[in-house]
Amino acid sequence: MKTMETKTKIIQNPPRSRWSELLKRPAMDSEYLDQAVEDIFFAVKRKGDQALKDFTRSFDGVEPGELEVPSSLLADAEQRISPALRDAIQVAATNIRTFHLAQEFRSVEVETSPGVVCWQKAVPIQRVGLYIPGGSAPLFSSVLMLAIPAQIAGCSEIVVCTPPGKDGRVNPAILYAARLAGVTRVFTVGGAQAIAAMAFGTESIPAVNKIFGPGNQFVTAAKQAVQKLGVAIDLPAGPSEVLVMADETANPRFVASDLLSQAEHGPDSQVILVTTQRKLAEQTLEAMEEQLQLLPRKDTIRESLASCRLIVMDSVDDMVEMVNGYAPEHLIISMENSRRVSEDIVNAGSVFLGNYTPESAGDYASGTNHTLPTNGFARAYSGVNLDSFLKKITFQEITPRGLQGLGETLQQMATSENLEAHNLAVSVRLDALDKENPNGN
Amino acid sequence: MKTMETKTKIIQNPPRSRWSELLKRPAMDSEYLDQAVEDIFFAVKRKGDQALKDFTRSFDGVEPGELEVPSSLLADAEQRISPALRDAIQVAATNIRTFHLAQEFRSVEVETSPGVVCWQKAVPIQRVGLYIPGGSAPLFSSVLMLAIPAQIAGCSEIVVCTPPGKDGRVNPAILYAARLAGVTRVFTVGGAQAIAAMAFGTESIPAVNKIFGPGNQFVTAAKQAVQKLGVAIDLPAGPSEVLVMADETANPRFVASDLLSQAEHGPDSQVILVTTQRKLAEQTLEAMEEQLQLLPRKDTIRESLASCRLIVMDSVDDMVEMVNGYAPEHLIISMENSRRVSEDIVNAGSVFLGNYTPESAGDYASGTNHTLPTNGFARAYSGVNLDSFLKKITFQEITPRGLQGLGETLQQMATSENLEAHNLAVSVRLDALDKENPNGN
Repeated sequence: MKTMETKTKIIQNPPRSRWSELLKRPAMDSEYLDQAVEDIFFAVKRKGDQALKDFTRSFDGVEPGELEVPSSLLADAEQRISPALRDAIQVAATNIRTFHLAQEFRSVEVETSPGVVCWQKAVPIQRVGLYIPGGSAPLFSSVLMLAIPAQIAGCSEIVVCTPPGKDGRVNPAILYAARLAGVTRVFTVGGAQAIAAMAFGTESIPAVNKIFGPGNQFVTAAKQAVQKLGVAIDLPAGPSEVLVMADETANPRFVASDLLSQAEHGPDSQVILVTTQRKLAEQTLEAMEEQLQLLPRKDTIRESLASCRLIVMDSVDDMVEMVNGYAPEHLIISMENSRRVSEDIVNAGSVFLGNYTPESAGDYASGTNHTLPTNGFARAYSGVNLDSFLKKITFQEITPRGLQGLGETLQQMATSENLEAHNLAVSVRLDALDKENPNGN
Repeated sequence: MKTMETKTKIIQNPPRSRWSELLKRPAMDSEYLDQAVEDIFFAVKRKGDQALKDFTRSFDGVEPGELEVPSSLLADAEQRISPALRDAIQVAATNIRTFHLAQEFRSVEVETSPGVVCWQKAVPIQRVGLYIPGGSAPLFSSVLMLAIPAQIAGCSEIVVCTPPGKDGRVNPAILYAARLAGVTRVFTVGGAQAIAAMAFGTESIPAVNKIFGPGNQFVTAAKQAVQKLGVAIDLPAGPSEVLVMADETANPRFVASDLLSQAEHGPDSQVILVTTQRKLAEQTLEAMEEQLQLLPRKDTIRESLASCRLIVMDSVDDMVEMVNGYAPEHLIISMENSRRVSEDIVNAGSVFLGNYTPESAGDYASGTNHTLPTNGFARAYSGVNLDSFLKKITFQEITPRGLQGLGETLQQMATSENLEAHNLAVSVRLDALDKENPNGN
């Protein structure tokens, strides 16, 4: 009965041949969005701010005011949120700052051959744009997650675009987080038009070098489109996911709450339990039913749980292999040897160890970033981190003696690749050195 | 007269308003390629190896043999190249290895709040695919530049795809470099079909998680297309570029050879000199004419030099600003205070300092990577480096006391974002801890 209500099924020891079908994500088809995004890009390119205001009127259904949020509103945002929320944002900001500061890059200078010195230098990306979605809730936590590392990196311009609320304004919690995290300018504009504005620039909004942040399918399609125009993006985006690995030491009520908290993100959220214990799976299912009654977003959660899978496996090694194959965005390991098991994880966005590390902690305030690779992208992508706001330039400096030592290698390789001007660039220099010092001393 | 031959012009002190027009790159239009790439993808997905062989027959004009190069051919490649080339490849490999080894990631574990521990772990991307173009020359240097960091990172599968030469085979210099650098498998297939094979997998070729390497416009369009399928790529690609900054201490013959060596890459190569000295620009132009006579690729070079710009500027500060605006792939600084000037460079792929550091050195053997951001992408992208073959997973582990300390922050934030299940995931745990220890000790 209860199983029917959420449509969640327990699957016992699926054969390896069924794994990929079992863990299949919904296919994303952005093609039908591409034309819409192209039209929006065309309008923003041609009409700039006016296009943004027109789209705000038609898409957000509010009368647009000034695009830029005046600095006075940023300055007094603190007064317009509760002291409890202000304190919470401050704690989160401190932890996020601490963890991302620890990621600072230390340049190493290396003499690869005598007289040949090479090094890397990390340089902030100058102008970054952060997209913060609107919708049912003000995602001030995403402001912290994106702006704090940008500020640590030293980006000179940190722009936020976010859609207006129903009152036409930006929520003060977003403004407070922006101010606390060093955002330089905030604009009230959302959707694909905001991405276009940050890519092309308008009268009000500066063009940026890289665009970050989550968003709906139009925003995602727009971010994909700007890549072709030379603007970098943080990550390709898909629906959010959690996979929980659990053994007999896990608490089914905790596991249930973690699955539900992922499910409440949206009807397409992916929610998976892989456990060694059939009994734990059953108890988790019961606890989910109970807890569901307490939650306001019941309908969203039920819809999401229709694709929830609770998988029982005999072997921990198989569990690990299955998890690495799936490459979850969030991975919770509630097992006796969580740390030990985590050492074998090679594909995941962010990992939560033990019974007292809910995903909520990483979503908000443990210090790790919550902008993570979904949709299996964890196989090749890191989540957002300090590096996401830096690029590394390489340098090399060669002394005359260094070039004399390396010259023959360079010439041999250039000639073998039929690049004779590359060879010449070495030989003109070696000839000049020979003339300066014909005895080779 | 000589100026006319290469069509290169000297531009004196252009006003700031003209800079962007002056440094405009040719627009890339990949749209007409997209359909061709889509057709190729469809065929490879449906017919696998057979499609690859059909394309080899029609595009490369050779009768396809086995797709995979047998390991015996890899093993004896050393015997089929000259000892001088073998030695040169070894020197280059050693320097590249030394520099990329120095980039190894050191994980830091941070306690962000009492009982809240976070860390990053660098994990190799498991399967990587390296595309090595064919054409007029065997680009074995690109094999070294891509496979050596992949090997250092610890990627478990390093696949190379490269088109057959006119004899239907892969050049032994490529095979030798591949073997030396730890490539696991080499396949004789080129073009967009090779990118499709590495993205989807075929009977012979394994699907990979990330694809690296240069290529023609079809390869570039194919790499852009696989990103939408969840396969990562190294960098968006465009024509190669060099910008030389020079003052009175530069040698016009050296500068000329650097400009020519960039020009020989192809007719769309971008070649720019920015100097404080009108006389140096004139002497460089003369030296280019002279050196051009010595070079086999005269026609390519002349075509490329049609868009070459020699710019004379009075102010070094303006030069730096112009260079940062352009964001060159390669930047040579031949100035009295090259290091000092280089400290102000914020947008460039790789920088070459002084009179004895030709771009050829970085192309082959100084140790830095030659896979670099073109087309202004240096504003937001690093060149390929060790990090390109790793992803960083974040971890967090919170003690019961840690969660009790952070709990209120998490709950406050979750509630303010209307995510009550996120709140619940914390409260079920805090309630359990209260029950265990009702006095809070």
